[in-house]
Amino acid sequence: MSLFITTLKQRRQKLAQLIDIPVILWSGKAPSRNFRANRYPFRASSHFLYFAGISLENAVIRLENGQLELFIDDPAPESTLWHGETPTRDAIAAIIGADRAYPLEELLPKTAHAATIGVQDLATYQQQQNILNRPIFPSNAPKEIDLTLAQAIVTLRLTHDQEAIAQIRKSVKVSIEAHKIGMKSTALATTEAQVRGTMEGVIMAHNMSCAYGSIVTVHGEVLHNEEYHHPLQQGDLLLADVGAETQLGWASDITRTWPVGGKFSATQRDIYDIVLAAHDNCIEAMKPGVEYREIHLLGARIIAEGLVNLGILRGNPDNLVEKDAHALFFPHGIGHLLGLDVHDMEDLGDLAGYETRRHRSDRFGLEYLRLDRPLASGMVVTIEPGFYQVPAILNDSQRREKYQNDVNWEKLAQFADVRGIRIEDDVLVTETGTEVLTIDLPTQATEIERLC
Amino acid sequence: MSLFITTLKQRRQKLAQLIDIPVILWSGKAPSRNFRANRYPFRASSHFLYFAGISLENAVIRLENGQLELFIDDPAPESTLWHGETPTRDAIAAIIGADRAYPLEELLPKTAHAATIGVQDLATYQQQQNILNRPIFPSNAPKEIDLTLAQAIVTLRLTHDQEAIAQIRKSVKVSIEAHKIGMKSTALATTEAQVRGTMEGVIMAHNMSCAYGSIVTVHGEVLHNEEYHHPLQQGDLLLADVGAETQLGWASDITRTWPVGGKFSATQRDIYDIVLAAHDNCIEAMKPGVEYREIHLLGARIIAEGLVNLGILRGNPDNLVEKDAHALFFPHGIGHLLGLDVHDMEDLGDLAGYETRRHRSDRFGLEYLRLDRPLASGMVVTIEPGFYQVPAILNDSQRREKYQNDVNWEKLAQFADVRGIRIEDDVLVTETGTEVLTIDLPTQATEIERLC
Repeated sequence: MSLFITTLKQRRQKLAQLIDIPVILWSGKAPSRNFRANRYPFRASSHFLYFAGISLENAVIRLENGQLELFIDDPAPESTLWHGETPTRDAIAAIIGADRAYPLEELLPKTAHAATIGVQDLATYQQQQNILNRPIFPSNAPKEIDLTLAQAIVTLRLTHDQEAIAQIRKSVKVSIEAHKIGMKSTALATTEAQVRGTMEGVIMAHNMSCAYGSIVTVHGEVLHNEEYHHPLQQGDLLLADVGAETQLGWASDITRTWPVGGKFSATQRDIYDIVLAAHDNCIEAMKPGVEYREIHLLGARIIAEGLVNLGILRGNPDNLVEKDAHALFFPHGIGHLLGLDVHDMEDLGDLAGYETRRHRSDRFGLEYLRLDRPLASGMVVTIEPGFYQVPAILNDSQRREKYQNDVNWEKLAQFADVRGIRIEDDVLVTETGTEVLTIDLPTQATEIERLC
Repeated sequence: MSLFITTLKQRRQKLAQLIDIPVILWSGKAPSRNFRANRYPFRASSHFLYFAGISLENAVIRLENGQLELFIDDPAPESTLWHGETPTRDAIAAIIGADRAYPLEELLPKTAHAATIGVQDLATYQQQQNILNRPIFPSNAPKEIDLTLAQAIVTLRLTHDQEAIAQIRKSVKVSIEAHKIGMKSTALATTEAQVRGTMEGVIMAHNMSCAYGSIVTVHGEVLHNEEYHHPLQQGDLLLADVGAETQLGWASDITRTWPVGGKFSATQRDIYDIVLAAHDNCIEAMKPGVEYREIHLLGARIIAEGLVNLGILRGNPDNLVEKDAHALFFPHGIGHLLGLDVHDMEDLGDLAGYETRRHRSDRFGLEYLRLDRPLASGMVVTIEPGFYQVPAILNDSQRREKYQNDVNWEKLAQFADVRGIRIEDDVLVTETGTEVLTIDLPTQATEIERLC
């Protein structure tokens, strides 16, 4: 039996050890774009992918006692003309180690008392409710047996087996190549869009897709900037948050920030080195048992300390973090889970990210923290500290008032050429510490300059 | 007033001249991919784009008497952190020449007796039904006032105004660059995916998107092949059907077929020249008043004639077309409407493609014809003849039986290195004939070889 099938069977067995209800998971269908046949690229539900292993459109699996039953229709004869020969149900069943395989119509009699997770594709979500003949709450608010299932899946997917880690490594490798070529291409580029095209072109060339909408921008202070029309100008920093996803669905998530002109200015380098210090110290502090929230607060403290040393913040770093002054410049969390989803299992709301009985803080410095659990061997998380000058934050009159004496606004004005810097790596928690999966992509400012 | 706004106001006026019912059109929302916040790129409904002019997510327009009312919410204050400063409702209203603008909640009291078209995005489609408080049939089967509206929109969108043609030209220009760079990159590429990455990278570099899922394949005989994993081998033909879409939503659609090794073999060139002859003769024959179906049949006859000359088919070309023998090798239509959608208005089923009271033929050679109308000045259509050796067709025992004496199967076997060839251009019907919008991309085999 292949390692692939062995792993899949182990995942199914482990689920059976956690819950004894039958489980039915739908893969979903590709939504249409501007007309029915013009569809977005299909992406199977991650929970389906975890147990089925490969991407299959309009398929269903039923899991019980560690066994997997596959429900999928053989391709219609006329589909061969348009889509070529595609594997039969039986061939697919063999590839994924299904115990039995049936056409979709045979699912209905096997649905009694089954738990499920609502998929994102609305057409399939409605089908789920029709076939199970009961309301299914959205995946971020599952109820009763569906909640039990979601919790069991979280338990499994929180830490990764070797096959999963191998997939993430594959994805990381391609993302690193995209970033390196992106850096090199910047000298000849005149717009953000050109660098994005080069980077995503690399990902496509490896027959992978993007795990999320790429951010490639000289306005890094817009955290989820997905526009690419700005011209590149000497003196700008380019922030690129771009990650590949393998064909089996596993993600990577990397951010680098590099100077458009190939050299950081003194002010850019000062801030860059603070963000890098936070990045390095956070990774250094990670090991099983350590609270991720403490890693976040450590990153915040190092950023605060660095900004005190530069004269941008005033006071004691610990006190500044306690009053969330760091969040003026670092308003997001230090990272998140990574796996089949770039924010792994975020479809389940905070069920995966937050340990039972923990909830999001309403503190300005903590509300966007996506992960609040003790680290465990086999987890993969991102570490992505940043520094941003967000006008909506820094020009907010209430905040200016509150932090009036903590910020040296004149000093800050000298750093106007630093709009946004983020350095993001993917980190595997090992039994003794960590392994930085993205280690082959440099982080040091001097090395970044060499790659540009 | 800008030409852009003038054109939009003309479109709204023309609609008012055709129908006097109020019209409400939704732009839609981006569907989610694997979790809610990880979304596919947003694409506004084409009917919305036609009258509103620009892409606006979660927006509604109400058209009556040539006036446009815009309904859209101002961005939430917290969205500035994640998405930056975005234009206010009033700024958007000025850009698109809206007569009045309101928040979304003010739509409800203005919905009485309004017609609409169901959008592809299911969440919005449900909202349409809730807000209009009546069932809305899917866009390919509109009923009553919605059918009246759809027919009026077809009347307008069938022929393009100057702004629309300018947009298609922009899109064409980028697609041509993508094809040229794709051809040049093939010598160094080892997989289909690499050429695809290069071509789509060019489109992205111009801050455009793909109008449809790219086909870049050495298996051109799979008509809608959207896999890219095959290696490129000397002797293969690479078929690339790749088209850009402008930011305002206007499409282009170009196919070229080139030799991986830079030189067509004698057999490939023989077939290539037949497909090209069909392409050239079809375009030559086009002018206002000519039936597109006749253009299709002309293409079929030239392919049949060419195959007779090569000794692959036997008999009289006209008779061969009459019995659909050409369709063994050219099993799709000669082309389709092009505009805001790559198959323009295909969301309305055959309402746009087929003249009133005409319906799809069940003839093997005609069933996939997407357009059956007399040509008119201002229409843009594709002309895309092809030759394919589709195993599902050629190995079908009924067809082999039926066409046993029409095909010289031994002769055909000599052309095994021609799996699929298609040559596709975008053609504007003018008052006196045509203008090939894609003229800057060569079609001659020798010129293609020079670009490789």
